[in-house]
This record gives sequence, C-alpha cells and structure tokens, in this order.
Amino acid sequence: MLSVLLLNGPNLNLLGQREPDVYGRETLQDVVARLEKVMEEWNGRLEHCQSNHEGVLIDAIHRAKGVHDGIIINPGAFTHYSYAIRDAISAVELPTIEVHISNVHARESFRHHSVIAPVVIGQIVGLGIDGYEWALRSLANKIGKK
Amino acid sequence: MLSVLLLNGPNLNLLGQREPDVYGRETLQDVVARLEKVMEEWNGRLEHCQSNHEGVLIDAIHRAKGVHDGIIINPGAFTHYSYAIRDAISAVELPTIEVHISNVHARESFRHHSVIAPVVIGQIVGLGIDGYEWALRSLANKIGKK
Amino acid sequence: MLSVLLLNGPNLNLLGQREPDVYGRETLQDVVARLEKVMEEWNGRLEHCQSNHEGVLIDAIHRAKGVHDGIIINPGAFTHYSYAIRDAISAVELPTIEVHISNVHARESFRHHSVIAPVVIGQIVGLGIDGYEWALRSLANKIGKK
Amino acid sequence: MLSVLLLNGPNLNLLGQREPDVYGRETLQDVVARLEKVMEEWNGRLEHCQSNHEGVLIDAIHRAKGVHDGIIINPGAFTHYSYAIRDAISAVELPTIEVHISNVHARESFRHHSVIAPVVIGQIVGLGIDGYEWALRSLANKIGKK
Amino acid sequence: MLSVLLLNGPNLNLLGQREPDVYGRETLQDVVARLEKVMEEWNGRLEHCQSNHEGVLIDAIHRAKGVHDGIIINPGAFTHYSYAIRDAISAVELPTIEVHISNVHARESFRHHSVIAPVVIGQIVGLGIDGYEWALRSLANKIGKK
Amino acid sequence: MLSVLLLNGPNLNLLGQREPDVYGRETLQDVVARLEKVMEEWNGRLEHCQSNHEGVLIDAIHRAKGVHDGIIINPGAFTHYSYAIRDAISAVELPTIEVHISNVHARESFRHHSVIAPVVIGQIVGLGIDGYEWALRSLANKIGKK
Amino acid sequence: MLSVLLLNGPNLNLLGQREPDVYGRETLQDVVARLEKVMEEWNGRLEHCQSNHEGVLIDAIHRAKGVHDGIIINPGAFTHYSYAIRDAISAVELPTIEVHISNVHARESFRHHSVIAPVVIGQIVGLGIDGYEWALRSLANKIGKK
Amino acid sequence: MLSVLLLNGPNLNLLGQREPDVYGRETLQDVVARLEKVMEEWNGRLEHCQSNHEGVLIDAIHRAKGVHDGIIINPGAFTHYSYAIRDAISAVELPTIEVHISNVHARESFRHHSVIAPVVIGQIVGLGIDGYEWALRSLANKIGKK
Amino acid sequence: MLSVLLLNGPNLNLLGQREPDVYGRETLQDVVARLEKVMEEWNGRLEHCQSNHEGVLIDAIHRAKGVHDGIIINPGAFTHYSYAIRDAISAVELPTIEVHISNVHARESFRHHSVIAPVVIGQIVGLGIDGYEWALRSLANKIGKK
Amino acid sequence: MLSVLLLNGPNLNLLGQREPDVYGRETLQDVVARLEKVMEEWNGRLEHCQSNHEGVLIDAIHRAKGVHDGIIINPGAFTHYSYAIRDAISAVELPTIEVHISNVHARESFRHHSVIAPVVIGQIVGLGIDGYEWALRSLANKIGKK
Amino acid sequence: MLSVLLLNGPNLNLLGQREPDVYGRETLQDVVARLEKVMEEWNGRLEHCQSNHEGVLIDAIHRAKGVHDGIIINPGAFTHYSYAIRDAISAVELPTIEVHISNVHARESFRHHSVIAPVVIGQIVGLGIDGYEWALRSLANKIGKK
Amino acid sequence: MLSVLLLNGPNLNLLGQREPDVYGRETLQDVVARLEKVMEEWNGRLEHCQSNHEGVLIDAIHRAKGVHDGIIINPGAFTHYSYAIRDAISAVELPTIEVHISNVHARESFRHHSVIAPVVIGQIVGLGIDGYEWALRSLANKIGKK
Repeated sequence: MLSVLLLNGPNLNLLGQREPDVYGRETLQDVVARLEKVMEEWNGRLEHCQSNHEGVLIDAIHRAKGVHDGIIINPGAFTHYSYAIRDAISAVELPTIEVHISNVHARESFRHHSVIAPVVIGQIVGLGIDGYEWALRSLANKIGKK
Repeated sequence: MLSVLLLNGPNLNLLGQREPDVYGRETLQDVVARLEKVMEEWNGRLEHCQSNHEGVLIDAIHRAKGVHDGIIINPGAFTHYSYAIRDAISAVELPTIEVHISNVHARESFRHHSVIAPVVIGQIVGLGIDGYEWALRSLANKIGKK
Repeated sequence: MLSVLLLNGPNLNLLGQREPDVYGRETLQDVVARLEKVMEEWNGRLEHCQSNHEGVLIDAIHRAKGVHDGIIINPGAFTHYSYAIRDAISAVELPTIEVHISNVHARESFRHHSVIAPVVIGQIVGLGIDGYEWALRSLANKIGKK
Repeated sequence: MLSVLLLNGPNLNLLGQREPDVYGRETLQDVVARLEKVMEEWNGRLEHCQSNHEGVLIDAIHRAKGVHDGIIINPGAFTHYSYAIRDAISAVELPTIEVHISNVHARESFRHHSVIAPVVIGQIVGLGIDGYEWALRSLANKIGKK
Repeated sequence: MLSVLLLNGPNLNLLGQREPDVYGRETLQDVVARLEKVMEEWNGRLEHCQSNHEGVLIDAIHRAKGVHDGIIINPGAFTHYSYAIRDAISAVELPTIEVHISNVHARESFRHHSVIAPVVIGQIVGLGIDGYEWALRSLANKIGKK
Repeated sequence: MLSVLLLNGPNLNLLGQREPDVYGRETLQDVVARLEKVMEEWNGRLEHCQSNHEGVLIDAIHRAKGVHDGIIINPGAFTHYSYAIRDAISAVELPTIEVHISNVHARESFRHHSVIAPVVIGQIVGLGIDGYEWALRSLANKIGKK
Repeated sequence: MLSVLLLNGPNLNLLGQREPDVYGRETLQDVVARLEKVMEEWNGRLEHCQSNHEGVLIDAIHRAKGVHDGIIINPGAFTHYSYAIRDAISAVELPTIEVHISNVHARESFRHHSVIAPVVIGQIVGLGIDGYEWALRSLANKIGKK
Repeated sequence: MLSVLLLNGPNLNLLGQREPDVYGRETLQDVVARLEKVMEEWNGRLEHCQSNHEGVLIDAIHRAKGVHDGIIINPGAFTHYSYAIRDAISAVELPTIEVHISNVHARESFRHHSVIAPVVIGQIVGLGIDGYEWALRSLANKIGKK
Repeated sequence: MLSVLLLNGPNLNLLGQREPDVYGRETLQDVVARLEKVMEEWNGRLEHCQSNHEGVLIDAIHRAKGVHDGIIINPGAFTHYSYAIRDAISAVELPTIEVHISNVHARESFRHHSVIAPVVIGQIVGLGIDGYEWALRSLANKIGKK
Repeated sequence: MLSVLLLNGPNLNLLGQREPDVYGRETLQDVVARLEKVMEEWNGRLEHCQSNHEGVLIDAIHRAKGVHDGIIINPGAFTHYSYAIRDAISAVELPTIEVHISNVHARESFRHHSVIAPVVIGQIVGLGIDGYEWALRSLANKIGKK
Repeated sequence: MLSVLLLNGPNLNLLGQREPDVYGRETLQDVVARLEKVMEEWNGRLEHCQSNHEGVLIDAIHRAKGVHDGIIINPGAFTHYSYAIRDAISAVELPTIEVHISNVHARESFRHHSVIAPVVIGQIVGLGIDGYEWALRSLANKIGKK
Repeated sequence: MLSVLLLNGPNLNLLGQREPDVYGRETLQDVVARLEKVMEEWNGRLEHCQSNHEGVLIDAIHRAKGVHDGIIINPGAFTHYSYAIRDAISAVELPTIEVHISNVHARESFRHHSVIAPVVIGQIVGLGIDGYEWALRSLANKIGKK
C-alpha cells in the first residue's frame, strides 16, 4: 500500500484566496481531495501537513522516515532559502517531488532558484494543482507500489 | 476606527538591553506605550506581537486580514532573508510600513538589502523609535481613517 | 479534437542509448507511442519532430501556429542558450510545456538555467518519460479540449 | 531656534507634474508650505534650495555649516551616484535625513542603492510628502531644540 | 554600383504578425520593398536572405565576400549568443550595420547585450523599419559608391 | 511645424578637434548646419544646446516640454552615469533619440552601457554624424509632422 | 562553576543515523555524555537544546544571558542564512564557539559561508564530535573558570 | 586500423584567407593533407567534415559512434556556447581532442572559456596547424592502435 | 617657461577644516602657496581652479589646451564616476597627474577605483599635500621645460 | 609512536610580537613547547618548521611522506592563495589539520577564504594557541596511535 | 642547434607517485629522457629545472635569455596565481609553451584559469606526457632551427 | 640619521632591459644611485634588496624592524597576490610607501588591484623612477628626521 506525505509551506493555507490570477481559485482542501481520490485507485494513504513554520515542516519530514514511501512538497517561499528543509529531505532518503503551482521562472528573479531542487528526484512548475497529481502518479510509478 | 497590527521580529524583545548605542535605551514596552498614546488621538486600536519565530509572525499577518487596517513591521534580521514573510504581506494586501531603528545602510553590507521592501508602501530607517510613530501616522493618513 | 506538437532537441535521438543511468532505457519511439496512446483517449493528434538543428525546431514551431493547440518541448541543450527558440515560442502564442527527463538541478550548474522557461506555461523536470505524459495531460486540461 | 536646510535634487522642480501616479500631485511649494507650518510650532527657520545642478547642492551644503542645525535632502537621481554630495554631507557634520517620495525599492534595480545613505542618520522612503514632515520632526527631536 | 546583402535572423519571417505592438505591422516584404526603392536612387542591387538557421546566415555572409559592398543584418535572437556570426562578419571584412526594430534596451536584460556589435561599424536600435533605411543610406555614404 | 531640441553633452564642443580618427573631422557647427538643412525640408525649427554641465542639460530638457516635439541627445560621457538626465527625459515625456558618433560597443567596456537607453525610443551608434540626421528623420516620421 | 549552553540546530537530532559516512555513527546523546564527562573535571553544568525551529534556538540564546558563561553551537543548515541567530548571539554577549562535525569546506559551495562566524570567538570544522570537546575546553580556558 | 573523424566548425572553411596573421596561410585542405600523411604511417582512415551548421556537426558526431575510434574537433566559435555539441561528444563516448589554431587566451575574453573542454580528453591551443597533428598522434597513442 | 593648471574637485575647498585626521590641517591656499614657491625655481606659472561643479572643471580642462603644459588634478569624489572629466583629459592630450591626499585604498571600497587613472600618466595617493609637489616636479621632468 | 609535522607559514615567526591584541603574546616557542608536552603523553615526536618561503613549506610537506603520521599547518597568509601548498598536501595524502590563531571570519574579507581547507580533514579558527593542541589531539584520535 | 629550457613547477617532482590516476605513472625523469631523445633528432640541448620555489623558476627564466631558444613550462599550481612568472616570461621574450598533464578543465574550477596563458604562444592540456613532446616539436617548428 | 630599506620585487632586476617603452631605460643601479644621492642631503643610509623570491622580501621586511625608519617597496607582480608581504608590512609597523614605475591602471585589469596598498601610507604610480625619489622625500618628511 502506497503511503505519501504531502507538505505545503508558508502562505499556502491562503490558496484560493491569495492572488487568484497567480495561484488559481482552488484551495488546499481541493488539492487534498483530488490527491485522496487518486490514492483510492491504489487504496493508498495520504498525510497532509501545511505550516508557516519551517521547523514544523522539518519535524514532519523526520517523522515520515519509515512511515511513508515518499514526499510531495510545495515549499512555498522556503524554496529559496531553507537549507534546513533541504538537509531534512537528504537525511530521510525518501523519494521527494517538488511542486510549484505558478511558473516561478516567469516571476521575480529570486523565485528562479530553488535550494531544494538538487535533492529531490523531480520538480513540476507552473501546471497549477495538476502538478500535485502528476507528482503523486510519478511517485507511485517510481516506488512501483500502487 | 483605525486598527493596526504592530509586528516586531527576532531579538527585538531585547530592545533597550542589546547594544544600546546602536538601538537606544527605550524598550518595546516604551514603543507600544508611545504608539498607544498616538492611537488615542483617533480612538484607534493597536495589536502588538513580537516573536523570534518566523512562523508566528506569518500567522499573525494572516490573521490581520479583515481585522486590521494596516501593518507596521520591524522584521529584525528576517528583513534580509524571509521571503515567506514577504509573501505573507503580499497575500493579505494590507498597507504595510517597514521600520528599522538603526541606520542599516551604515552597518554590515548584508543589512543593506531588504527582501521585504518591494512589497511595503514605505520604509523608515535609522530614526530610532520615532520611526514607529511616523509609520503609524503615515498609515493613518494613507487609510484616511483616524 | 486536440492537436499537439511534440518537439525534441539535440541528442534526444540517442535516448535509450546515451548515458542510460541518467536518461533511462526507453527510446523516443517509446515516448511517442506512450503519448499516442494517451491521445487515443481523446481521439487527438500528435506530430513529432526531433532535430539536432536549432533552425529546424524553430521552423516547426512557426508551422504549428493555426495547426496545433499546444506544444510539448524538450529542448535538450538548447534549453540553456537558444533565445531564438524562446522567441519562436513567444511569437506563435501557443501554450507550451517544457520537459526535462533528468533532474537538471542536480547536474552541472550550466544546466540549472533555462532561457525558455519564462515563456512556457510550465516545466516538468526529472520525472523521466512520465514527464511527457503529464505535460500532455496538463495541456489538454488547459486547452479544455480532449 | 531650530534652523533647517531643505534640499531637493534634480527633476524635483517638476513635482506634481511628472508621473503623478508615482510622485503624487502635490508640488514642491506644497512641501515647503507644509514644513514651514510645522516650523511655526517651534518658531524655526527653513531654507529651501532645489537644483538640477550637483554643484549647486554641494555649495548649499557647505554654506549650511554654522548656519543650520540640520539638513533634509531628497537627492533625486543623484542618490545613486553622487559621491560628491555624500562627501559634502560628511564634511559639514550636520545631522542629515534622506527622503524619497516613492518606494524606490519597488522600482528599477538601480534605484535600490543609495550612495548617500551611509552618511545620513536616517532615511524615509515611499511615504509621499509625509516623509518630509517626519524628517523635520525627527531632526528636531534629535537636535533637541524646538 | 552599390550592392548590399540584407540579412534577417530567426523569427523575423513573422514580422508584421508577431507581437505587432513590439515590432509593428509592416512585414519583411515591406522592408525589402522600401530598401529596393532606396536602391533605385543609385541603381544599386539588394540581395535578401532570412533564415531561422544560424548556419544559413553564416554561409550567406561568406558568399557576400567579393560580391557585395556591405551587409545590413538584423540578427534577431542570434544577437545575444552567435559568436559564429560575429566571426563570419569579421572574416569577410565587409562594412556591416546591425539593425534592431524594437528598443532592445527597454526589454528583458538578456537583450541588452549584443555579441555582434563590436565587429560592426554601427548599430540602429528601436527606430522600427526606418532603421533599415538609415543603415542602407549610411552604408552608401561610407562606401562612397551610390 | 516640427520643432526639435538637439542636445550635446560634455566634450562634444571639441568635436572635430578631439581624437579625429574616433570622432571624425566635422564640428558641432557642421552637425547643426546639416540638421538645419534637413529641417528646411519641413520648414521646421531646431534649438541647439551643448554643455559640459549636467544641470544645464537637465534644465534644457525641462524647458523643452510644451515647446518642442522631440529631443535628439548625444549625452557624451553622461550616457554612462547620469540617472538625473534619464529622469528628466522620462519626466517631460517627449520622444527622444540617443545618438553616439563612434561605435561605443567597440571601445572600453564602461562605454557599452547606457543608463539613458531604456527611456528613449531608439539609439543610433557608430554611424558618425549621419546618426544625427537619421535621428531627426525618424523623429519626424514618428511625430508625423514634417 | 562553569555553566555552558550546548545548542544543536536542524537535523542534528538525526546524528548517527543520517549519512553516517559524512557525520559518523555517534549520536547527540553520545556528544552530550562526552561533554558532561568533561564537565565533571570542573564540576560544571551543561544545558543541552536541539531544535529544528530557528525561533526555539533564539529563545534559548536569550535565556542563556545571566545563566550560562558561554555557548557552544552547531547551527546546522542555519549556519548559512540565519542572521536572526547571529543577532541573538551578538545581543547576549556571551563567548560562543561554532562547531561543524564534517569539513564544510570540502562539500557544496553554499556550505562554505557562515553568517554566524563573524560574531563567535572561534570555529571548529571537520573534527567530528571531538570538535565539541575542544570547544568546551577552549571556552573554559577563555572564561578562566573551571 | 585507426579511424578518426576530423571536425571543423564555423568559419574554418575560410582558413588561409581570413585574418592570416591570426590563423596563418595554410588552408583546411593543407590540414587534411597533413593528417592523411600521418595516417599513412599506420594505414589509418580520416573522415573530414567542416560545417557552419551546428546541427551538421552534431549529426556527424552521432554517426561516428561505432565507425571511428576517436574525434579531433576545432569547434570554432561554437566552443563558447554549443552545449549541444558538448552533449553529443559525451553521448558517443569516443575519445576526443579539442584544437584551436590561435592562442585563444591572448584574445577577447569570451574566447577564454570552452564549454566543450570538460568532456574532451585534452586541448591544444595556439600551436597553429601543428595542433591537429599532435592531436592525431595523441589519439593514436591513447587508443593504442596505429 | 612651465605653465601648469592645478584642479581641485568637490569639497576640497574645505581642506584643513573637514576631517583633519584624514586630510590634514593645511588648506588649499597652503597647497597653492607651496606649488607657487616650487614654480619660482623655474620661473613658471600656476593657474588654480577649485570647483564643486563637474562642468566647471571640464571647461577649465578644455581652456588649458594650448595655454598650459600639463595638469595636476585632485578630482575628489568625481574620481569614482566622472567619465566626463576623464574624456576631457583624453581630449586635450595634456600630460596629467592625479593626486589624492589620503590613502584611498585604506578607506571605503568605492574609493579604490578611479575612472580617471587610465588616462593620466601617473597617480600619487596618500602622501598628503607632498603629493601635489611631487606631481609638479614630475610634470616638469616629463615636459623637460623648467 | 605518533609522529607529527608542525608547519607555520609566513610572519608566524613574529608571533607574540606582532599585533598582540590579534594574535596574543605567546610565541611560536611556547606553541612548540606546549605541543611537545602533549606529545610526551604518547611518547610521540614533533618536527617543527616555520618559513616565510612557500617553497620551503612545500619541500617540508613532501619530506613528511613516510616519515610523519600527520600534519598540523597554520599557513598564515598563504591560506588565501597558495594552491601549490594545497596540491602538496593532497599529494602526500597525510591527514592534515589547518589552524588559525585569530578568527579570520571577523577580519578583512580576503581572510574568509582558504584555498587549503578543501584538502584538510578539519580546521580550527580563532581559539588562539589552544587550536594547535586540539589539532594535535584530533590527529592522534584520528590516527589511533598515541 | 636548438636549445630549450624545460621548467616544472611545484609538486611535479612527485610525478609518477602522486595521484597516478590523474597524472599517470611516468616520472619527471621519464619526461626528460623522452625529450632528450627527441632532441637527439636535431642534436639539440635540453636544460631541465624543477622547483617548488616560485623564485627559483623566475631566476631560471631570466638566465634563459640569450642561452636558450625557447621554454617549455608546466607551472603546476603557480599557473593560477603567479603573475611574477608571467612577467618573467614576458620580459625575456622567448617563445614559451605551457603544458598541463591532466585536463585542468575537467577538474576544480580554480584550475580552469591560467594567468600564464596570455603570454605564451600555446598551451597543451590533458594529453599526459605526450604534451611535453608536442610542445618541443612545436617550438622547434616555430624557431625553425632543428 | 634617516635609514631606509628599498625593496624591489620580481623581475625588477631586469629594469632597463625589459619592455623599455613601459619601464624606461634606467636600471635598478640608476635608481639606487639616485636615492643614495638624495640620502646624502641628510647623511642618511639606504639598504637595497631586490629578489624574485617572496620569502626573501618578507625576511628583509622582518629584519628592518628596529634597524630602518621606513620602507620603500616596488612589489612588482607580488603587488597583486602576496598577502604574505602585506602581513609582513603590517607586522613591522614601519611607514612604507609603494612605488610602481608604470601606470598600472592603464594596463591589464589584474594590475589595477594592489593587496599591499591598504597597509602602506601612500602609493606612487606611473611617474617612472621619479616615483622612488618622491617616496624617499615623503618618508623623510613623515619621519621628520632628515
């Protein structure tokens, strides 16, 4: 049975309200519902955690070790400076996919660089909340356990 | 009635004790007292939150939406790297003024750059705790609701 | 009926032979077969073009205008310097998704920067040939014509 | 009795006409009138000088020595390259506050850097012509002579 | 009799269709017609070549040696990276003028730098298709053969 | 009737004497005579101002507002640092064309960058004093008033 | 009696499990046990705090003032961006030594720079958990109170 | 029997004509003749391809796989930006030596950097057409098959 | 008879008053007196001009042509940005020596770079007002006309 | 029996005399005496070499091969540029620890970078001459031969 | 009769022992023997000098003037910083070829830059000790005296 | 009695022979003779040391302490990288003046930066061997002991 941890970083609790022309009108609840539905295909399990606290996200990554098969993370603005989250992902050695809802490469230049990207297996950028679904399906393919 | 959130970032709880020739001898309590006195002029309301935790400040910014008319923030050292606080300010779309007690441009070079400045309406630097009062008065002028 | 142009840049004709631990063992033919199978779901049409010649890719993008609904492009090494391909994509104003098979952010630093990314709607990196399928499905969702 | 020199650099004579959505509709005359009114509170004296000539501003700073108690300067575009004005401010050793009407940090990147800032006591950015008033009040507080 | 080679680089075949508020509504055919009319003044000869293929442009430059008196080139996006075109221009030692229809200095920063500019005699930027005419007239003046 | 302000920056009064293999042997008087002759075609008016003083050029730009239809400027060495002239051009909102007699891109690297270029409509570089004529003809075309 | 605060930053709770060829097989408990044994030599006191939350570390530093004689800190990934921890160390004015278990200078380039190093008295890098013991012994020598 | 592919990039067809004081007076035919004579020593085979088209060179590299024992390449100006040629060389895994006729390190700074160099076994710079012969002899030594 | 122009840039009129531990207590009058005394040795002539206006200095340099044999210039803060003064010195082709009273290399980093230095024959830094005398004596030696 | 080479680079012969508030008052003789005393614990052998000549240090490193078990080096100013010493340390493959007496990270920025650090096992900075003792004890622990 | 100075810089005395998979197993003696054998073809003379001391290499270059016809130098790590060796080579005006045994462009980035390369006639990189032979043969060809 | 150490760095032994249009035709012997003659004015003593060995220069600086009153140094190419010589000058605390015969600011860019300049009292550049005399006279003035 596939078990995946979904992590969403700072300000993503505002999804659907904040700058809807950048991030769309769907909420995090919609994302979770969509992924849970995909999970049903394989009778899998999804744990979701959103936090504006870097430490909470790191603690969640640590706890995932031995519990989940992989991680989907949208690190929000932590993408650009949280070497601590990067090290946490390296440390637990779980396959991880990074998702960004908007096309960060078409926005401010500080958003072009991800300190997390070198330690994940892949990255999906700009495909809206579709990105979360593709991440989940790729994790499942990778892990070979649906 | 004007309602304003006053946020102070890491180490500002030490104000008045820490490096007094840089930051002066007045404490955060003095700042709050001074601003509350100004608020009395308009019968306004001030909420104050100081934290050394980035996530606590972000949560406070989120809660301000629909509650306060504007934000005064001294982000302390988060000024230089917290893209997460920057995104929170953008997201809630409340007029925000950034205050620095000392002249950051006359100190170490890493203090010359603010990642927050592009999303606020203005910035006051180096005018000691006067800066907080001018920020409040400008917010009031801006909002046109005293 | 959905019509999509699939473009693969230089050296991708060697897919499956070249550095298989970086790029996997599946060939471009496998990619095309997989996408065509997805296309059958919607009775759609896929045109495929691989070239080691920048000009051939640009000409193909120009011809896509008015013929296809969107473009999926893996620009190979042209990702890092072909402002001409970037301009072609801007010019035809077709929704385009950029795919990279390997995680370019975990490789040499020149591979971290894409001159194409700012003009596409999204980017999928490091998910192997799954990435092509997700790109197609996102295009279809985006265009709303399956 | 408080005596202050107000300096405005190049193009500020156009204030109120030039790009009014950036700089507002009030003119330099309005600024001077507002400051003179504040000055009345302390029976103080304001000298105003606007020039598009760097040398005229430097000469005015030199003459201020022994005549004025402090300087308020909006150096306009000289902010970004006039090391000569910076040296003049250092040389006369009068407390000086730098004012920018618009939020320079939200504009072109060359406007983010001030060569003057390291030699002033403080800086007010983006608060419109309020900024001049806060600068005057801070100078008065600083000098302790109202 | 004056003989000139007119070269237009990638995507310029779309002139008049692509982003008309940046590049105007006139087509390459209009440009050629205009230059041919100017040529009639001197009974001169114009050869025109547009290509999206860098190699085709280089081959054309080589063939110009001993055939034409000068070159007018709008290298399109090759402006920013084709050291090969630059070397071709140096090698044939024909007076060359570089033309850009839009003001590249007011667009993305990668467009501010031309690798071709140091080997041409001059550059005309942002004057629309007028630029081609001025280039031709300057070449004629330079060569002193109308 | 077309009315144009011609501005020449520092050291251009020496034109014809200074480094004649870089700048040619024609003087500023020759330039003005040539442009006046062109002006006769349309019965237009040319005002000329050369100064080694940045402030004099700025004042002239300000006075042009409402008097002239456009500006031709060769900012000389001010090209590379006078943000004050740049702001003046922005402020008066007159169509402006920047002219350089020599090919600045083939000279010292500090000459490759113009702080003025982003606010003009176009730039002519390296075509000798022809450049001034093309600038005038383009302005006339642009303004549509000959 | 010597009293020292030992701080360990993010991911150090995984010491002994995470990448053992980089960080070795000893755990944080082993580190604490070793330091407590050294402390017995002087009848000293050690307080230990590990956290993945930057704010928790800052709060601990603040509480150390007046309670401990010095600090030993391994800031983990916060080394590279936490100006807030740096300011906290400056503010409490306690002698502090920075320890890194692995040789950060032989790893990724972002690990070569410590924002904390300028405010500590010294730094020990790459000597495994020996580094903690040397830090403690140096603090004791420095404070002169064993 | 040794079999080697000799590749010459853009503008090298002009060898002997173009800037003879930089590149000498010998032509590509002379180079080929010289190498063929060396090949006779070992009864080897030389295939030669010069092109101004990047894609043609890449196609030739691909075809070399399984046909030739090694490659000698003078990439001309492609040296400085063709990551596509670099990838092609990596992909075919044939020992390759890079030759430059002139001393690129004594010319313009853009010529100091080769994007190809990290994937070849060696590089010969500035030794004129001798460089081709040494490259061939080193390939033969390396391959151990003369 | 030797004739020399002595130029002093912005803020040097304050010499002797401004930051005396950096610049010493001697005034510009002392400098001129000292140089005039040296001039008496050769019956030479010294013209002195100090200005805070860049344009005034440029005009003075222009007038020196054909009048003086050489120039001694302390450009003050213009050292770091006045490409216009640099061009003026190049244009008049008079031997020029640059003098700085204090050791600019031991001060703020912006003072380490002189845009003037590449066009003068030499530079004297940090030797106080002695520097002016050595400059004059070197000019005399150089010109060979005492 | 443990055998260690202690190397001290340029200017360290002045230790105890030179800038005593940076480097302390103890001399190199004191350092050697202290290390020899530590060596007595294990009956080990210490060879000491101080030189202001880079070549002498390199020769000493070469001779250490097969004679000593490890190296302690304070490279002095060679830290920042001697790639030759770096290569020597790599070449002899002896465990090496780098010691700096003062906190180089709190001094001039050129002192922040060590070209030696990537090839040593660890580095001790700012702990005065304690640093030498900790280096010796760590080497002994590492080598496991006391 | 051809006379050549062979110089080898720091750590090259260890050739054959040090990192043999980078530098091969042949020693400097093997290199000298091979070159002497080549010299026999022309009855030439080879002087060899290896030193870890920069000054010894510079002295040898000086002595070569008037004695040798050319220089072959492998500057080892001095390649990257010895402007003094560079100046020595310029000063004696003897044709010089730079040799590197390994492909420096495929190693650490500091090895990509040679301060010596701009003053030599050519450079051979990565061809093992073959490189020395090709350098000698090219020198002989260049000098035309075998 | 004034006693001064004159130091000349690498390649200065070739003065008068090497690139005479850059460095002139006078030799070091001429420089020494000139300075000795100046010394006679005050009955002073000059010690001269030229070396191509950095270590020899450092040793000489150390010996100067307590023996000489000041140092004149032309560090040659060591100017640009010898932090060891810089530290030696700082350590002995003797007033030191840096001399360069040619105008280093008009030569290659690596020659524009001196690592020595921040620790000397002044610098003379480009005044030929006059520079040595002015340095000596300034030292004498500074020391006040002729």
